[in-house]
Amino acid sequence: MINYNEALEIIKHEIEKLTLHTEEVDIFESCNRIIAEDVFADVDLPPFDNSAVDGYAVKFSERTKWNIIGEISAGNFSSFNLTEDNAVLITTGSKLPANADTVIPIEDVEVDGNNLQLKPNAFFKKGMNIRTQGNDLKKNEIAVHRFTKIDAKAIAVLASCGKEKVKVFSKLKTGILATGDELIPINEKPEGDKLRVSNIYSLYAAIKEMNHTVINLGFTKDDKEIIAQKIKAALEMNIDLLITTGGVSVGKYDFLKEVFEEQGVKEKFWKVNIKPGKPIYFGVYEKDERRILVFGLPGNPVSSLVTFYVFIKPSIEFLFKQNEIKSITATLQNDLKKKDGKRHFSRGILFEENGEWKVTSEFSQSSGNLVEMSRANCLIEIEEERLNPKKGERVRCILI
Amino acid sequence: MINYNEALEIIKHEIEKLTLHTEEVDIFESCNRIIAEDVFADVDLPPFDNSAVDGYAVKFSERTKWNIIGEISAGNFSSFNLTEDNAVLITTGSKLPANADTVIPIEDVEVDGNNLQLKPNAFFKKGMNIRTQGNDLKKNEIAVHRFTKIDAKAIAVLASCGKEKVKVFSKLKTGILATGDELIPINEKPEGDKLRVSNIYSLYAAIKEMNHTVINLGFTKDDKEIIAQKIKAALEMNIDLLITTGGVSVGKYDFLKEVFEEQGVKEKFWKVNIKPGKPIYFGVYEKDERRILVFGLPGNPVSSLVTFYVFIKPSIEFLFKQNEIKSITATLQNDLKKKDGKRHFSRGILFEENGEWKVTSEFSQSSGNLVEMSRANCLIEIEEERLNPKKGERVRCILI
Repeated sequence: MINYNEALEIIKHEIEKLTLHTEEVDIFESCNRIIAEDVFADVDLPPFDNSAVDGYAVKFSERTKWNIIGEISAGNFSSFNLTEDNAVLITTGSKLPANADTVIPIEDVEVDGNNLQLKPNAFFKKGMNIRTQGNDLKKNEIAVHRFTKIDAKAIAVLASCGKEKVKVFSKLKTGILATGDELIPINEKPEGDKLRVSNIYSLYAAIKEMNHTVINLGFTKDDKEIIAQKIKAALEMNIDLLITTGGVSVGKYDFLKEVFEEQGVKEKFWKVNIKPGKPIYFGVYEKDERRILVFGLPGNPVSSLVTFYVFIKPSIEFLFKQNEIKSITATLQNDLKKKDGKRHFSRGILFEENGEWKVTSEFSQSSGNLVEMSRANCLIEIEEERLNPKKGERVRCILI
Repeated sequence: MINYNEALEIIKHEIEKLTLHTEEVDIFESCNRIIAEDVFADVDLPPFDNSAVDGYAVKFSERTKWNIIGEISAGNFSSFNLTEDNAVLITTGSKLPANADTVIPIEDVEVDGNNLQLKPNAFFKKGMNIRTQGNDLKKNEIAVHRFTKIDAKAIAVLASCGKEKVKVFSKLKTGILATGDELIPINEKPEGDKLRVSNIYSLYAAIKEMNHTVINLGFTKDDKEIIAQKIKAALEMNIDLLITTGGVSVGKYDFLKEVFEEQGVKEKFWKVNIKPGKPIYFGVYEKDERRILVFGLPGNPVSSLVTFYVFIKPSIEFLFKQNEIKSITATLQNDLKKKDGKRHFSRGILFEENGEWKVTSEFSQSSGNLVEMSRANCLIEIEEERLNPKKGERVRCILI
């Protein structure tokens, strides 16, 4: 059985071969998309020398008194030919008049009519409080790099570069199908050994949180023929990923793996040395130019979501070169039981206290406990060789 | 001039008085919304005792050998009346047969035909590997608390509780209007002292990132009459927040504050002891049952976004009782210049290295530099009384 890191590398290796499509969207629609082009500044930013403060623009000299000859505010430039004995009132961001090389903040002067005087002891240095043209970015330099996730800050830069339309990567299309004889629709009340199907809802949301497209293929009983038809139809769709839940374990109804093989999916791995989620299957379907990554996740609702978080999510982030903050190292607030050589992903609650990160995990850690999981904000990752980490030890926590 | 904390408290005090509306959405549409009801479990979770592993269900005794009499998989329960000498093969999550009180994992047994034998030294204890009915949550207990932000984990729980429709808080409606004689549309090339309007784009995105609704009121020149008309029209709209940029400083074109007053907005504060963003204005408009919070942000693109992040965003999170991880304490990697008694919000890049959080901020920190800001992932908050923090000191970093 392969270890977690090997399995993740195999997925990354395969996901990299997906063809990334691009599309143009309006700048207002580009929030949370991944930009597919380097965007260059078409002008210097800022486009002109301007004042960093509300103050008085002067031509620097030994003088400490000036005559106020006018005012410039943002968008209302007037040309003054400053001499050493004159000053112009200027507001933050406004274009500097010719010859001005220094701006004195309003709090550092005294004004009496048109007479301006530097306060005693005020800081006064040539060049102060000026933002020079191109100081933020020079024309033709890269303003927003390809693979940047577009947020409010990036959108401000795109707007400043005149990008009304932005080229972004198309969203990945993911089909999701849940399988299991135990599943019933959520509007029914479970009886006997039945369970409401929660996997398609949680995976739907997990993919939407990543801003990709979901095609909900619903759920089906453990009937090999029906499942085979559904998988066949899914593999003919224009999708990038196919995610199933259930049917990958060792019972007599676990024939997803068999179906994948019969439908031409090439197995890359089956079973990983982790807990929860051990029976995870991964394969690749290729036909003509099309390529679909196939993930057979376990049917257990906690396991399916955990395996999504630790295999599928990081692979997609890798594909789109996303490197946001995803994990935090923290101090365990309680002992954790771990006696085997698997990699564990335990549910935890991470918090900062007095500048130190701490994590509690006093949950049952049963992979059946969805409510418990919903109250966690991280997965505590315990590596294969590490056993029974104790209170006070440092652990890596993956934000979920 | 009031300090940051006072200003934030004033906004929180006012935003709490907003009437929160609710609406019902389909569970698939509920992702990233804030739930407006406590959702109770309508059944025990899990609804029946089940196996935590793939293994053999037995009635615990001193025996170590059993006769396999059948198999139970998820959704395919059969009733077996187990005696001490029998065992039933059972898959993870499947309902336990009557009398079964213990499950032995498949890796701990040897099977020969129908003969089952415990491996020597295998751990064997009464009650092991069983998930009891209601262990995750008992019927009628709260499964998802009001004010929970609905994510993939919460959706799994909602589905398990049969919630096809979910009551969520309606999105806040926010009007945004940029003002300034310097502003030109982004599809024009800036000449002279003109600047492309970036504020409405960045604020639009910042509000969208919080999953609220934006009404884009565009931008306008510093013409008092036109601005007054626009503000009047905005205050007649069905909005919760009105955000303007520009016109709140001290120049002769800074008459937003005056316009607000003339239109009946009650000033709560003007100017806060911070950098950047000092001239921020906050007021409240009330008419009949309607209530609008009015924020006059500075016109500078960095300042407007920073003030959004440190005033408006935390107030909205406060209103909806959101307490995600929003800041990280980190070690400064370089000296920061700060000689005044203002609270500073400097742009920084936060990262974890060897389990320690560090932040660099070797930016010019000019509030004109949008590109610099777009490459930051945090605001380093330096309190009023703190001066010139040095490399190695610990600082609070607000994630942006």
